[in-house]
Amino acid sequence: MLLWHAAVINNVMMLFPVELDQHFDALYGLELCEMGEDRVTARVAVTDTVRQPIGIVHGGVYASIAEGVCSIATSVAVVGDSKLAIGLSNHTTFLRPISEGSIHAAAVPLHRGRTTWLWDVRFSDDGGRLCATSQVCIAVRERKGA
Amino acid sequence: MLLWHAAVINNVMMLFPVELDQHFDALYGLELCEMGEDRVTARVAVTDTVRQPIGIVHGGVYASIAEGVCSIATSVAVVGDSKLAIGLSNHTTFLRPISEGSIHAAAVPLHRGRTTWLWDVRFSDDGGRLCATSQVCIAVRERKGA
Amino acid sequence: MLLWHAAVINNVMMLFPVELDQHFDALYGLELCEMGEDRVTARVAVTDTVRQPIGIVHGGVYASIAEGVCSIATSVAVVGDSKLAIGLSNHTTFLRPISEGSIHAAAVPLHRGRTTWLWDVRFSDDGGRLCATSQVCIAVRERKGA
Amino acid sequence: MLLWHAAVINNVMMLFPVELDQHFDALYGLELCEMGEDRVTARVAVTDTVRQPIGIVHGGVYASIAEGVCSIATSVAVVGDSKLAIGLSNHTTFLRPISEGSIHAAAVPLHRGRTTWLWDVRFSDDGGRLCATSQVCIAVRERKGA
Repeated sequence: MLLWHAAVINNVMMLFPVELDQHFDALYGLELCEMGEDRVTARVAVTDTVRQPIGIVHGGVYASIAEGVCSIATSVAVVGDSKLAIGLSNHTTFLRPISEGSIHAAAVPLHRGRTTWLWDVRFSDDGGRLCATSQVCIAVRERKGA
Repeated sequence: MLLWHAAVINNVMMLFPVELDQHFDALYGLELCEMGEDRVTARVAVTDTVRQPIGIVHGGVYASIAEGVCSIATSVAVVGDSKLAIGLSNHTTFLRPISEGSIHAAAVPLHRGRTTWLWDVRFSDDGGRLCATSQVCIAVRERKGA
Repeated sequence: MLLWHAAVINNVMMLFPVELDQHFDALYGLELCEMGEDRVTARVAVTDTVRQPIGIVHGGVYASIAEGVCSIATSVAVVGDSKLAIGLSNHTTFLRPISEGSIHAAAVPLHRGRTTWLWDVRFSDDGGRLCATSQVCIAVRERKGA
Repeated sequence: MLLWHAAVINNVMMLFPVELDQHFDALYGLELCEMGEDRVTARVAVTDTVRQPIGIVHGGVYASIAEGVCSIATSVAVVGDSKLAIGLSNHTTFLRPISEGSIHAAAVPLHRGRTTWLWDVRFSDDGGRLCATSQVCIAVRERKGA
């Protein structure tokens, strides 16, 4: 069901090959598009799977996309230093409902600290209109046993 | 797959019978437990479906539970006045990972305003330890055509 | 003590002439710099007045600047329609302490809705480094008696 | 102008005697009331000093109180371990304006982690009505040179 695009950043190959299609990001259909150092983009197709019964995309889907994209991108960036990325907080604001097409997400790191990364995520619909935003804070910790 | 418990509040029967099992809250397994006026509780069983590949519950799942529970509970409360509940924002903070058992959520309305409701949601594991919190703000709007 | 720059936007003159220098924004020294439709900037000089005892700027000062700037800018934009701007929420994240020079704030409206405006505010030090961010949500309501 | 009440917690005397009355918490009139381990309360009198020109308390004042109270209370609790408390984020939501009397704040620690503390702060007016809430996240770090 899922479709993780391979990504090599700073000569580090992405580390999540394990049966992703049984995990949560696969469940709702997260597709990573670009994974650059200064911008990561992703997409989720709108089907009933991500809708509320009233026909619009469930707010938790935006928060999930933001959390998934920022966790993965931070992990990929710090894994070479034997570090681990762990979500601290996720603040998502809903501006305009999406009911069809795709949800397009673009995440930009505002701060890449030694212990904390902060990401700004913007969501738009197929018409390019801003529909939601997330601010995601990710802790960077030593990997135990490293 | 899903299991919405029937709920009648203020003589208003819950309004979401339509194929819930194809929508997002069903996808990740949301189960409403109690629906009181001053407290709503819910539960999600931890399986790979809600985990990240590293084995802990995906942060987006907490945000989704909070969003789902608070939207539904606000909707049920205002539907009798021909009003609609729409999510405005969701701020979820992660304190301690959960990797097995169930996620237990308890939502309490802090403010029931004319145009905005504010909810405080606490998540705990099977041992009763606080694992995450959400603050969810829901707009209450006139239902078009009402 | 304070220095509100005059501002005319959409032929509407700013409406806050009343003894601003006795109110909170004046107390901590808010100075509006530019007030454009797509960007508002402000500045606060760092003195003991805005510091915590340990020598760095108090976190509440960033939140206050964001709240002040976004409330004023939204008010100015909607006052011509007999509407009022009222703060709904303020989420400020601290990235790097400032201990001297000035706090420079730049606020950009992400969403100008009928009932809600969302602002993104970035704070930097004299060296241009990002030190804090705020997301401010402002409600737009009918002015009573209008 | 300021009025820090002395506090001894876990046999540690509060450490902020230095000319507090020239710093920000003093500027807007923060008064600590109780400082228990499970609850800290504070108060600010409403005068023009903390108002916006339209007559209600400035949103930044609530955020500042929350930030001040939680930073101080965390500092006092960890200073005995040679650690330092530094604000990470402050999310304040405004529910009901206050225009006179006092702002009453009560802060409760939801999580006292090794590296992060999370506080829930509630603000009420003289009538005991909930007027605003803050969630404050404070980092706990080694004190350099300790």
